[in-house]
Amino acid sequence: MLSIDLNCDLGESFGAYTIGNDEAILDVITSANIACGYHAGDPHVMHETVKLAIEKGIGIGAHPSFPDLNGFGRRMMDLKPSEIYEITLYQIGALQAFVHAEGGTLQHVKPHGALYNIAEKDAERADAIAKAIHDFDSKLILFAPYQSALLKAGKKYTLRVAAEVFADRTYQPDGTLTPRKQKNAVITDITASIQQVKMMMTDQQVRSADGHYIPIEADTVCVHGDNAHALALAKQLRTELTSAGIRIRNLG
Amino acid sequence: MLSIDLNCDLGESFGAYTIGNDEAILDVITSANIACGYHAGDPHVMHETVKLAIEKGIGIGAHPSFPDLNGFGRRMMDLKPSEIYEITLYQIGALQAFVHAEGGTLQHVKPHGALYNIAEKDAERADAIAKAIHDFDSKLILFAPYQSALLKAGKKYTLRVAAEVFADRTYQPDGTLTPRKQKNAVITDITASIQQVKMMMTDQQVRSADGHYIPIEADTVCVHGDNAHALALAKQLRTELTSAGIRIRNLG
Amino acid sequence: MLSIDLNCDLGESFGAYTIGNDEAILDVITSANIACGYHAGDPHVMHETVKLAIEKGIGIGAHPSFPDLNGFGRRMMDLKPSEIYEITLYQIGALQAFVHAEGGTLQHVKPHGALYNIAEKDAERADAIAKAIHDFDSKLILFAPYQSALLKAGKKYTLRVAAEVFADRTYQPDGTLTPRKQKNAVITDITASIQQVKMMMTDQQVRSADGHYIPIEADTVCVHGDNAHALALAKQLRTELTSAGIRIRNLG
Amino acid sequence: MLSIDLNCDLGESFGAYTIGNDEAILDVITSANIACGYHAGDPHVMHETVKLAIEKGIGIGAHPSFPDLNGFGRRMMDLKPSEIYEITLYQIGALQAFVHAEGGTLQHVKPHGALYNIAEKDAERADAIAKAIHDFDSKLILFAPYQSALLKAGKKYTLRVAAEVFADRTYQPDGTLTPRKQKNAVITDITASIQQVKMMMTDQQVRSADGHYIPIEADTVCVHGDNAHALALAKQLRTELTSAGIRIRNLG
Repeated sequence: MLSIDLNCDLGESFGAYTIGNDEAILDVITSANIACGYHAGDPHVMHETVKLAIEKGIGIGAHPSFPDLNGFGRRMMDLKPSEIYEITLYQIGALQAFVHAEGGTLQHVKPHGALYNIAEKDAERADAIAKAIHDFDSKLILFAPYQSALLKAGKKYTLRVAAEVFADRTYQPDGTLTPRKQKNAVITDITASIQQVKMMMTDQQVRSADGHYIPIEADTVCVHGDNAHALALAKQLRTELTSAGIRIRNLG
Repeated sequence: MLSIDLNCDLGESFGAYTIGNDEAILDVITSANIACGYHAGDPHVMHETVKLAIEKGIGIGAHPSFPDLNGFGRRMMDLKPSEIYEITLYQIGALQAFVHAEGGTLQHVKPHGALYNIAEKDAERADAIAKAIHDFDSKLILFAPYQSALLKAGKKYTLRVAAEVFADRTYQPDGTLTPRKQKNAVITDITASIQQVKMMMTDQQVRSADGHYIPIEADTVCVHGDNAHALALAKQLRTELTSAGIRIRNLG
Repeated sequence: MLSIDLNCDLGESFGAYTIGNDEAILDVITSANIACGYHAGDPHVMHETVKLAIEKGIGIGAHPSFPDLNGFGRRMMDLKPSEIYEITLYQIGALQAFVHAEGGTLQHVKPHGALYNIAEKDAERADAIAKAIHDFDSKLILFAPYQSALLKAGKKYTLRVAAEVFADRTYQPDGTLTPRKQKNAVITDITASIQQVKMMMTDQQVRSADGHYIPIEADTVCVHGDNAHALALAKQLRTELTSAGIRIRNLG
Repeated sequence: MLSIDLNCDLGESFGAYTIGNDEAILDVITSANIACGYHAGDPHVMHETVKLAIEKGIGIGAHPSFPDLNGFGRRMMDLKPSEIYEITLYQIGALQAFVHAEGGTLQHVKPHGALYNIAEKDAERADAIAKAIHDFDSKLILFAPYQSALLKAGKKYTLRVAAEVFADRTYQPDGTLTPRKQKNAVITDITASIQQVKMMMTDQQVRSADGHYIPIEADTVCVHGDNAHALALAKQLRTELTSAGIRIRNLG
């Protein structure tokens, strides 16, 4: 039986600031990427989010980022690979403390924002992230884009890797995402989005932006819950995948 | 055979900023309290300091603080006990990541600066710190002032506690430190400082500022290495205690 | 003709985080206290908020705070008076840069959160704030609670001071606010809130929590717009004060 | 009579951390670039440094940076031009508050570290910096590398610009600095360094790394005081330029 994981960024509130719709999306997803205080989140938010994820049986992941709260981790920072190794370790450790204190288990790590983007292409920085995860706990799963430097680095360090795909993004002939700057990068139609994921699951291929069918692996689908459209897509995706006989479950 | 631990704050550099004299003091002490990024330290400094401590066989401790880099953690902040629990967990976890990645073992936790001071007297906040340590790893040792709320809280959570004493500070009749605001709070004479620690070790008592002999326990002595006087005191203390037949060793 | 200023905290969003309801409240108030990046706000939010306030003809004030983004400036920090002087200057200067670049004029300064609270009682810290405002621009207006150390300090430095009152808080016989910890501290009934302000304006007195009529001055009323109830109160207050022949205008 | 300004980065200490040798270099230089809290400096350090600079009659400049205390502003951050405009305004304003409170006058602005580097080549970001300076105070002088996008942007906004040269760096045939990655980028010999500046002053040319004589303008020379070699170079440079009949003075 085919199965897939649905993951979402969680715990991105901070102090007096609330962001996202964590309660609602928790009933849809199977894995949560929890912010670690560098782009979002703080010790209290991390604590509460971890408790909630454990209560709901969601797979818990660390979501490390560049240290840029004001930019929400979306602005590239020119850190050396050794610095990236160190900030990744720091953040995983900080989150793990809450997971452990609450009796849970850390399942995975998924880099956030600009750190995720740079690790798609930059082999040295991808290596630093994968090594940090390995040195922390070699049983952790690394979430990485299909056909990315990060996925390769994970395999090099013998980590279990989960190829992450997107329902609402188009793909290039080489299996990478179409950059957001290009006009056809985003799929706005929910039906087309869901159709794309179903094809990924059942045929192990995706129709690229220029019309070719290319092979793809999909272990986890990234969804969002921070607006009504995203939440609706996530719910419908879960429903239709289930109807198509695909099991929705985390990777733990 | 009597034995004592010598501890010192370490890893308090930050980015381009260097503070302390970590290399020199590492040959004198047996336990290091390593900053966790809230009052000092950053992921790189934490990494380097942990490597150095492991190489030298020093007992490694987390040194959590209020989040106040500009004030070096010395300014009281009115955090709720639950917030103190959470910042303590966060910081211990972050440090532990480096200790674990380098193959070491975390030995203890000692709160820093204003957090240490408030935990001396405030039972609720002391409880929050002790609970965080317990929930993270109940085998960790809590360093706390003799006769403090923090020491009591550690015992409540069945933590192993180490009563911390000071060579260069005077004591009150109730076993607490003379507040720094009072003029006789600090012992500036090295010989008197060393004499105080020797008496604590051999007689389990200290002569209070007003001349009474009071019972005291001493598991670890706090020393400093950040100026020539402090380093000289630390070295001489180690030499003289050793000469007096007292073994200098950590608590691991 | 009687007149009163209505002020509200503004520009408290930060990076990806939105807080408050700035657009809606701007049509009700006459003065805005704009966050300066220490408890909320960032250069982009400050810039946008200043532009909006100028466009709407709102009196612009700096809203300096303790440096505590995670605690939203609501947690007391034990800063020395000299440090408070310096963080106040820093924040006023930062905001003034945007006001000046956009062709506006800074009208006032109102400390935020825990800094406001400590300046109510602590003469030394109140003095530091008033001196910073004076040294920056002696024509600025200081917003301070009636009967506070801060108001007195403002007068000492020959600043123009505006006594700030609250529609939804009760008063003590000495003219100070009933502490929030006490159960009768907050007035939840909108009609009673409005009645209180009207009495302050027309009779220069307020009925204290224990039923005495005590003299009070009211130059500016603090309102909020961050929830439906607060916004409704603010709008109704403006309408009813206007109907009672009281002019709503800023202090510029 | 020929004249030149000697500038140095100052006020880069932070909280408990001391960096640089501000007292010693203040007797050598004529202009100081003072950190504004984003890469270094804090309100207290800014206050003390401004007081010292005014006392010594040094031209005071703001030294804005990317918001990266841990990286000392040396790591490139991918901020949009509008964000660069806003962080520049914020920092200039914050420093100006101390200058104004102490009765001084702000003379210039020089971007720091990675922000300076990116403004050498990137016209859009250079424009944002120059516009921020212009909008704050069109009489401020912009310090920028000779032949840089930043210098051009300053002229576009009708700012007075000061071409900055380096004693210890070699130049390319197009008048730009040899990148630090190249092996001949730095001049380590003090005599050669001083000779380079003297030729710049007397002949308005410099001998490029590949041996050509190219025209150059030099309004201000960047020196450092943070190690013995740098301080010695700065002192000797001042002495020899003076002996050669060149007046050392700021640009105010």
